[in-house]
Amino acid sequence: MNEFDFIKRIKNKTRMHGDFSQVVQGIGDDAAVIKPTSGRQLVVSADLLIEGIDFLRSATSARLLGRKSLAVSLSDVAAMGAKPRWALLSLGVTEDVWGTEFIDQLYEGVFELADKYGVTLVGGDTSRTPDKIVVDSIVLGECKEGAVISRTGAKPGDQIFVTGTLGASGAGLRLSNRGARITPVQETESEQRAIDAVLMRHLSPEPRVGWGMVLGQEKLASSMIDLSDGLSSDLHHICEDSNTGALIRALDLPIDPAVVELCGRRALDPLQLALHGGEDFELLFTTSPANASRLPKRVDGVTVTCIGTIEASDQGVRLEEGLRVWPLEAGGYEHFAARAKTV
Amino acid sequence: MNEFDFIKRIKNKTRMHGDFSQVVQGIGDDAAVIKPTSGRQLVVSADLLIEGIDFLRSATSARLLGRKSLAVSLSDVAAMGAKPRWALLSLGVTEDVWGTEFIDQLYEGVFELADKYGVTLVGGDTSRTPDKIVVDSIVLGECKEGAVISRTGAKPGDQIFVTGTLGASGAGLRLSNRGARITPVQETESEQRAIDAVLMRHLSPEPRVGWGMVLGQEKLASSMIDLSDGLSSDLHHICEDSNTGALIRALDLPIDPAVVELCGRRALDPLQLALHGGEDFELLFTTSPANASRLPKRVDGVTVTCIGTIEASDQGVRLEEGLRVWPLEAGGYEHFAARAKTV
Repeated sequence: MNEFDFIKRIKNKTRMHGDFSQVVQGIGDDAAVIKPTSGRQLVVSADLLIEGIDFLRSATSARLLGRKSLAVSLSDVAAMGAKPRWALLSLGVTEDVWGTEFIDQLYEGVFELADKYGVTLVGGDTSRTPDKIVVDSIVLGECKEGAVISRTGAKPGDQIFVTGTLGASGAGLRLSNRGARITPVQETESEQRAIDAVLMRHLSPEPRVGWGMVLGQEKLASSMIDLSDGLSSDLHHICEDSNTGALIRALDLPIDPAVVELCGRRALDPLQLALHGGEDFELLFTTSPANASRLPKRVDGVTVTCIGTIEASDQGVRLEEGLRVWPLEAGGYEHFAARAKTV
Repeated sequence: MNEFDFIKRIKNKTRMHGDFSQVVQGIGDDAAVIKPTSGRQLVVSADLLIEGIDFLRSATSARLLGRKSLAVSLSDVAAMGAKPRWALLSLGVTEDVWGTEFIDQLYEGVFELADKYGVTLVGGDTSRTPDKIVVDSIVLGECKEGAVISRTGAKPGDQIFVTGTLGASGAGLRLSNRGARITPVQETESEQRAIDAVLMRHLSPEPRVGWGMVLGQEKLASSMIDLSDGLSSDLHHICEDSNTGALIRALDLPIDPAVVELCGRRALDPLQLALHGGEDFELLFTTSPANASRLPKRVDGVTVTCIGTIEASDQGVRLEEGLRVWPLEAGGYEHFAARAKTV
């Protein structure tokens, strides 16, 4: 199979997925052509996943890799309060997986998530790589004019919310790095379920597309970011860009139950994971007290939790733990830092 | 410098470039936000360049690499007849170049070309890579509704045109692979100029943005593609998608003068290079005989040449060479083929 046959295959597959009513030209020409919805703003995000840095081939599957590559960009578009519409996938693969089921399964993972959130694959690029697989996923979304939620709008007095639960992806990464895999053989059934749960949160994160759209459409959030680097780092981004401080209440953090279950025996610290573990891909947002009461109880089965308050910038970013209040440093993941991890 | 400082640097740099009148949110949030021009269609292209496959670090410079990464996507958008407007850059870099001038120079190359064609950098991603540099450039363009030029519109009787000259990029690649570099020391001054010319065509291609826009705005082309794989392959793409054949006249091919000058002594076959050498990034397009006479003589100093005629599909794709007519096989570059090159 040469790359032109491959592109035809993918093109044919896309026809069985998505909504082509606003797609003038999908895969198969020099570029994709889209008819944007009149009066909407366009939101665009690109996310690069690189083998050996962002994932290990031995720790994931082609399907989960495809799924995650789209998930991380969907999460970015959700964090703007926009509705994801179209995607492009730039894929660099090694010769050993070319022409194998690996690529079909990778695209199956992409389509699985694209179908779930009504996203249509319209383009991308395919290249050979010498030794490491590379995926760049690009998602285009739309939102009403002026409805986009940036990182700059938080105000002192706003409440800080987070969707879903925290810490599981970080726990999954740490266990994965120690060799844990999703298998049926473990010490106890309950522990097995908890290990599988955190591994899956790391390998197959769920972007909070529904919450992003609700918050955007109703203008319920004053600022928003998705938790990719880690709560502490991402909160610092909001506070820096909004010129505010913040107080987080440790007791209110919605730590994932599987993380709590695993904590003692696996030497995983739940609070550290919730604060600094990256890739939870939950939405962190702020709302005025008036809007906080208007928040829906749940969207797509996912609840939100109030974890703190935005304060004046001279207060800094702080953590209330029991009777103590500590400065909360940005401790999330950085690609280029002395402690940069390779997964 | 951590990646957040880096992103701030790039964000500050973008402010000195481009047009932010329709950019609601540029670099520095979860996603870019754009206000599309009312009534226009959106054209999107992504192109992945990978070290060791698409370029050698030893054969190019950071500035030229940045420039080329944008050029290839601009060329795709031009090939749709659209005006490029915005760009995103996903960059994976190795630890040894992080924090060095390499990245600044790469972005300088990107901005150089972006400024030339009125394109504004609005987003992207940054990642670490284990050992190979990776660049995915994404360009968004706009065109009037119904004005996009696809590969499907060629009709028997249409004339086939190509912008600029052919074969120089392929010659540059071959000389580069033999160790040729842009230096002041060569056998003769004239030969040096020719070698530099073909090396630069390979390392620093010029997208035909002006021609693309003229052909799109005036609807002068019935089909169009950019020459990335090579004339023979790209012509086959048009003929397949338009369900036609084609006859190319070898004598009319605008072979680059530098290729002709170098041909004998360097064992470079000008006709082979013009037909099958990839990455010329010229535009190959077809026009009805009526529209052919309406073509401008030159755009941005670049002329076009009529090189053949679209025929019925049962004629196949053929080459007229002197008194003989041969079948013209697709012989351009493929990433996954027995003869796939690594640069």
